[in-house]
Amino acid sequence: MSIQESASARPAGRPRSEKAEKAIIEATLDLIAEGMGVSELTIEAIASKAGVGKTTIYRRWSNKEDLIVDALATLRAPMPKLPGTSVRDDLISLLEAMRRESGDTRGRCVMNIAMSEADRYPRLMERFLKRAVEPRRQAMRAVIERGVTTGELKPELDVDMGMALISGAMLWHTKWGPAGDLPSDLPQRVVDAALAGMAP
Amino acid sequence: MSIQESASARPAGRPRSEKAEKAIIEATLDLIAEGMGVSELTIEAIASKAGVGKTTIYRRWSNKEDLIVDALATLRAPMPKLPGTSVRDDLISLLEAMRRESGDTRGRCVMNIAMSEADRYPRLMERFLKRAVEPRRQAMRAVIERGVTTGELKPELDVDMGMALISGAMLWHTKWGPAGDLPSDLPQRVVDAALAGMAP
Repeated sequence: MSIQESASARPAGRPRSEKAEKAIIEATLDLIAEGMGVSELTIEAIASKAGVGKTTIYRRWSNKEDLIVDALATLRAPMPKLPGTSVRDDLISLLEAMRRESGDTRGRCVMNIAMSEADRYPRLMERFLKRAVEPRRQAMRAVIERGVTTGELKPELDVDMGMALISGAMLWHTKWGPAGDLPSDLPQRVVDAALAGMAP
Repeated sequence: MSIQESASARPAGRPRSEKAEKAIIEATLDLIAEGMGVSELTIEAIASKAGVGKTTIYRRWSNKEDLIVDALATLRAPMPKLPGTSVRDDLISLLEAMRRESGDTRGRCVMNIAMSEADRYPRLMERFLKRAVEPRRQAMRAVIERGVTTGELKPELDVDMGMALISGAMLWHTKWGPAGDLPSDLPQRVVDAALAGMAP
């Protein structure tokens, strides 16, 4: 979700406050990327890094957790428009968004650090997952379930396991594959390999 | 790899120094689990936590990185003995080791934190991967390649992608699945789902 989208739920900001909001989000991500854990991350530190007053931050976010959830959400690529032509095409679109996202080095670094704190800040991570991960997961589930209905996928398919194979193979390449950008044909190769066992 | 195995390359220690070694490894893991990053982790802090002198540590490890690599390696379950009866049975054995490992909460927490530092300490992570991940990856590759040779798997199989699907689905359940221990039938379910697309 982009900053614009995340801001759209609030009263429309003037250009000046949009700029401040962007600076605050960037400062938060920079501090996390520099290795500052959630416990050390303070509104003071973020305000100082962003070059704004603390009140400017509190005007938008009532607490640190809300700000961190918003900042992490800006790292996710926007949900892609699905072509709707076939299960294969839609899954490739979904994985292509994951691939683009993983090409952002700072984003990956911040996400790794944030995830490493999941055990210590379960509520924060739960909110982030609900906000940034759950909509994509639901989109993938809908595509697969539609495929079962249309007969593109086998009727007895374990939908959860199908999602685990597809998303997991992407995750595996991000975590354990060769360093650098994921190859542009990876989404298609992952989908074809997974669908080989999911077709009727 | 167990502490005993990792120590076997060095002159055999007396029981007293084995006990000290275990305390040092545990202190290192505890400090990481408490959120101490690689940069803050000092031999002083580890010695103090383990209740040993710094020289006791330096007698075994010439530097902090070596100690951290050894400590992280003790978190991995030992490489399982493969039954060798079928590709399916061998893959289930390999995933069962991953499943047991993920049930160790402190281990998972330490591994998450360590992995979050991969971008900042690439050499350390590379050594850890080589020591603790590479042998398993090679074992899985050998099982799959054997399956292609025996005809249990299709001849044109993309071996790397097969590994990504199988390991990725386990990784996905560890990272994004429901909290708590992974279900005991998960290795078998992952292998069967993946093999559905890998059989001839």
